[in-house]
Amino acid sequence: MIYFNNDYSEGCHEAVLEALTRTNLEQTPGYGEDEYCAKAAAKIRALCQREDAAVHFLVGGTQANLTVIAAALRPHQGALCAATGHINAHETGAVEATGHKVLTVPSDDGKITAAQVAQVVKAHREDASFEHTVQPKLVYISNPTELGTLYTRGELEALWETCQKLGLYLFLDGARLGYGLTAEGNDVTLPDIARLCDVFYIGGTKVGALFGEAVVILNPALKEDFRYLIKQRGGMLAKGRLLGVQFDALMSDNLYFDIAARANVLADRIRAAIDEAGYPYLVENKTNQIFPILPDRVLNALKKTYVFNDMDRVDDGHQVVRICTSWATKEENVERLCRDLRETTVV
Amino acid sequence: MIYFNNDYSEGCHEAVLEALTRTNLEQTPGYGEDEYCAKAAAKIRALCQREDAAVHFLVGGTQANLTVIAAALRPHQGALCAATGHINAHETGAVEATGHKVLTVPSDDGKITAAQVAQVVKAHREDASFEHTVQPKLVYISNPTELGTLYTRGELEALWETCQKLGLYLFLDGARLGYGLTAEGNDVTLPDIARLCDVFYIGGTKVGALFGEAVVILNPALKEDFRYLIKQRGGMLAKGRLLGVQFDALMSDNLYFDIAARANVLADRIRAAIDEAGYPYLVENKTNQIFPILPDRVLNALKKTYVFNDMDRVDDGHQVVRICTSWATKEENVERLCRDLRETTVV
Amino acid sequence: MIYFNNDYSEGCHEAVLEALTRTNLEQTPGYGEDEYCAKAAAKIRALCQREDAAVHFLVGGTQANLTVIAAALRPHQGALCAATGHINAHETGAVEATGHKVLTVPSDDGKITAAQVAQVVKAHREDASFEHTVQPKLVYISNPTELGTLYTRGELEALWETCQKLGLYLFLDGARLGYGLTAEGNDVTLPDIARLCDVFYIGGTKVGALFGEAVVILNPALKEDFRYLIKQRGGMLAKGRLLGVQFDALMSDNLYFDIAARANVLADRIRAAIDEAGYPYLVENKTNQIFPILPDRVLNALKKTYVFNDMDRVDDGHQVVRICTSWATKEENVERLCRDLRETTVV
Amino acid sequence: MIYFNNDYSEGCHEAVLEALTRTNLEQTPGYGEDEYCAKAAAKIRALCQREDAAVHFLVGGTQANLTVIAAALRPHQGALCAATGHINAHETGAVEATGHKVLTVPSDDGKITAAQVAQVVKAHREDASFEHTVQPKLVYISNPTELGTLYTRGELEALWETCQKLGLYLFLDGARLGYGLTAEGNDVTLPDIARLCDVFYIGGTKVGALFGEAVVILNPALKEDFRYLIKQRGGMLAKGRLLGVQFDALMSDNLYFDIAARANVLADRIRAAIDEAGYPYLVENKTNQIFPILPDRVLNALKKTYVFNDMDRVDDGHQVVRICTSWATKEENVERLCRDLRETTVV
Repeated sequence: MIYFNNDYSEGCHEAVLEALTRTNLEQTPGYGEDEYCAKAAAKIRALCQREDAAVHFLVGGTQANLTVIAAALRPHQGALCAATGHINAHETGAVEATGHKVLTVPSDDGKITAAQVAQVVKAHREDASFEHTVQPKLVYISNPTELGTLYTRGELEALWETCQKLGLYLFLDGARLGYGLTAEGNDVTLPDIARLCDVFYIGGTKVGALFGEAVVILNPALKEDFRYLIKQRGGMLAKGRLLGVQFDALMSDNLYFDIAARANVLADRIRAAIDEAGYPYLVENKTNQIFPILPDRVLNALKKTYVFNDMDRVDDGHQVVRICTSWATKEENVERLCRDLRETTVV
Repeated sequence: MIYFNNDYSEGCHEAVLEALTRTNLEQTPGYGEDEYCAKAAAKIRALCQREDAAVHFLVGGTQANLTVIAAALRPHQGALCAATGHINAHETGAVEATGHKVLTVPSDDGKITAAQVAQVVKAHREDASFEHTVQPKLVYISNPTELGTLYTRGELEALWETCQKLGLYLFLDGARLGYGLTAEGNDVTLPDIARLCDVFYIGGTKVGALFGEAVVILNPALKEDFRYLIKQRGGMLAKGRLLGVQFDALMSDNLYFDIAARANVLADRIRAAIDEAGYPYLVENKTNQIFPILPDRVLNALKKTYVFNDMDRVDDGHQVVRICTSWATKEENVERLCRDLRETTVV
Repeated sequence: MIYFNNDYSEGCHEAVLEALTRTNLEQTPGYGEDEYCAKAAAKIRALCQREDAAVHFLVGGTQANLTVIAAALRPHQGALCAATGHINAHETGAVEATGHKVLTVPSDDGKITAAQVAQVVKAHREDASFEHTVQPKLVYISNPTELGTLYTRGELEALWETCQKLGLYLFLDGARLGYGLTAEGNDVTLPDIARLCDVFYIGGTKVGALFGEAVVILNPALKEDFRYLIKQRGGMLAKGRLLGVQFDALMSDNLYFDIAARANVLADRIRAAIDEAGYPYLVENKTNQIFPILPDRVLNALKKTYVFNDMDRVDDGHQVVRICTSWATKEENVERLCRDLRETTVV
Repeated sequence: MIYFNNDYSEGCHEAVLEALTRTNLEQTPGYGEDEYCAKAAAKIRALCQREDAAVHFLVGGTQANLTVIAAALRPHQGALCAATGHINAHETGAVEATGHKVLTVPSDDGKITAAQVAQVVKAHREDASFEHTVQPKLVYISNPTELGTLYTRGELEALWETCQKLGLYLFLDGARLGYGLTAEGNDVTLPDIARLCDVFYIGGTKVGALFGEAVVILNPALKEDFRYLIKQRGGMLAKGRLLGVQFDALMSDNLYFDIAARANVLADRIRAAIDEAGYPYLVENKTNQIFPILPDRVLNALKKTYVFNDMDRVDDGHQVVRICTSWATKEENVERLCRDLRETTVV
């Protein structure tokens, strides 16, 4: 079977593996206080054009989300996100387990608008019994979103300005950030993100690393004592250098961006085949996740060879699936899928 | 000003005050282990026709809700309720502060149906990544609901059977239970509730007591060690007998039910005046809360004399308000309001 | 039986009951936003000589402790106290249930010294792996302590200066503050406490009220959004005015202090009888709690008439008991106990 | 510099690295539902002689501890351990952050006895106000302990019987289990541990893996829904197979035990040199951690070449250090250290 169901089916990019192998028997200090973490952090600060950024490496996305949010909020405060937001929909209540309500707004494309944020905060503040409701204090967005869509620079600026004006933190989950930054039509740069967020992370797990996310903190209020929180929530690896070594490799020679760009190009080829076959999408996007709505007949035929990720049923004869490419996707598999998409359709 | 904005504007019924005064200088053991708590609990067990029930007295509704839910759930489990549910909308994330997500379903009338519960549980169990989402384990309902509506016996039975079949707890918040049990058309009795819930509470704060709610636990699994949880959450009064004395008085001579019934009768008179004036309701109900949609002109005139609770704006010229009667409402004030409703309308 | 086992066996002082009765049918806004709470808060601010203090009324001591501590700390921070501290020993892990470790230092007399605080903070900061341990951030003391002892003004000043210098909050639990402020030899005033703490509370439950504690916040950082936290933790009474009415009565005409002083005088008489009989104490003190070490023979004889609170066994023939007086203690009972102490000893 | 300060300074054993490299580009299902995790779990079940065991792979020790304890306890229950226990002393309050108090007993050698457990539970149950204190429900031990000492089979059996009799869970933290099972004089086997614990884990991070711990659950009550809890606490790797691949390699051909045994042998050589030089120990033990008390003169000389882990000062001229060997320790470095220990002493 050929897996297109997600972007974490393989291990890591060969350059990452090579770096891990090369450094394997070196002796370094533990808990992220080694030179590899320092080097990787320095490269990230440079790429972000923010020498003041605090960079921490965490094991995974759920942990990054819950640690950042627990660090940022007082007990009566909540995180606001799209109803499709990962923290709301796919983390087993990890944020609530730290004591905080996730507040949601509806979204068709996985994005949340500055106007929605402003409206929620206004409604809260105008509520005569506002103290009986959770105070919105942090806006959680993902870019790309869970539906593979992207924020424009204008949208991000509007969110940032709204958050600044209203005293909220803006937190960007970049689990697939590489795929976003290199997508066709994207107008947001890494320095833009560093300028327009209080905190965000650069995802490694889904973009070339074995595992790991680089949390970048810009707001000084969120930097204080962050390592205590990593430790408390179980995210501080004894061999922290494993994360430093991986991100050092990924952030060298544009590797992180090149491998993400390649995955997007492969996804575009699949999109072209889907377009040609005339299938619609749950949502249109240009990153490494594709959400076509396929007739059951076509899907059943394809499932003999390929594994996709089943999403919602649309109607009695149609199903949304997620098709993912990644840094590891083989070009020959993409070509075969494109051919099969065309042929299955014709039959 | 005459207050119709809620049902907790006054102190307590004179019989409750008399009992507190009469027992004031008696010496009793602390923390609810006194004879008054024992007597009140025995009366509640008898009224519920459940000698096996564990009865605990807590200070208030939010505390009762958070203590029961924290006692019932494991960390990955959530409480399911209508989006309007008090625990979701008006308790500052008290349930989340104990680590649990509140899961919601939409509702127009404040009620949740057995079919909704079954659908949520089915969707959870059929989800391929179900372990990445919060497990629904407890259904929270309020009766009357936050909108003053009532569950029928049939609806409660369907909820109970669904919860039993699916392994969920059913928890009924009875902050205004007296008003529900004595409402015109209600077909649910206290023994019905004790038969059809795992745990519920009989509200005192809004029905004649200074403060206090009587939590009634039927499910043996929820009885174990409950007093530890009351203490841990700050709900165990040193002078616990204050709650026993009050509930002993309320549960004697049908007092609790008589004073609630009277409030409903007074509310019916106001409803009749509203009907006569031709104003619609946000939702129709027969308990002590009334939710008419009033023209601004009428509302502004009434607000010179009366305090209501402003709810949502309906349109540019109309406002939903909550008008409450209670055990303490004076008949003369109701008559005056009815007269003013008629007169304001005519003008 | 005559109860000397604690100071919460009765209801409330007659002036408090009279105030509750007089105001019972008044209509006031809910949730502590009424004029009685405002008046009581103003009186407390005046007595503290701190017009800038925020005053909130909570239902009980455990709730006051957990709400203040949860409001003050970030997740990785802990509360430091004597091992005998109420939050450590008698609140079922209420502080831990909000996510925070209670750090302890040993104490024979229930007090913690500035030197101990400084030593703990120094050890934490000098620890090479300090981020792997809980950061001490708040010092919790009680005055009187759980053993009835009192801090001197010098001790409080040293604690305050140490906390200020090290960036820690100082929180004083005044569940029995009245008995402390009026004890023989006490040199600490209410304005001293308001000057030397970030936050403290004036206990009502054990000093004349039915229930209730007045939390006084001096540090602006702790004032922000405190009402949200009260609500979230279940401590916001719908009929909040019940607390305002009670504290308004207690803080009028020196009532709170007079009734506490009287209890201390009665305790002194019992101490005199114990001294005369030659029994030692677990710890010496001058407030309303007495901790004599009695021979079993004497204790068994007294237990036919009196209820004390059994504490630790000292050896095979001796037992520590707690004997409490309170605002409600009858003089004739004290005289009888003194006589019986003398007579039981002689026999 | 040569590092003897801990057992996590290097990456992983070459066989583990080889397995990761060999499988790197395979496509497998995510979140631990792959065949490598299945194979590794099967091997662990076989080694434990418990086909009924549930085996889960978590990222690190703090996370394993907090996830197991949060899964096992109700809110009012606490974990009991030696004051030196890792959960008490070195995890930044991770257990408290899940809402549970860590209860401690004193210990000189890092171990807790069955008698201590029985005494704590007895004192709790006999306490007249037991509901005001945290209920001990789980006993946490580590083997080897934080001080490198080992439980005998007799001690473990006594703990297990006591826990069974009193209704407590026994949880063994095996972060360094390999070093314990292969130490000279150890009489405990892996099947013994599986028979005498409700849950334990086999540590990988410190015994040959890059990272990872294998949690083995024997008690059916603790198995239920455990994967939800792993996900909620951030411990579920997208590429869960990374842990399966590593443990599959470690559990093949006795690798895990062989490399641990070798580290113990090297530690014994260092112990012999210390004995010969006549230095005492903080505590005697036979595993890979050594805690000698060295004169400052000797220590300062050695520190020019070696890195140790500074522990407590003993007196003005002496210091406890931790010297660790590991699966990665080079024999030549051990020999050099032994020689330098002898020579430094003579001088």
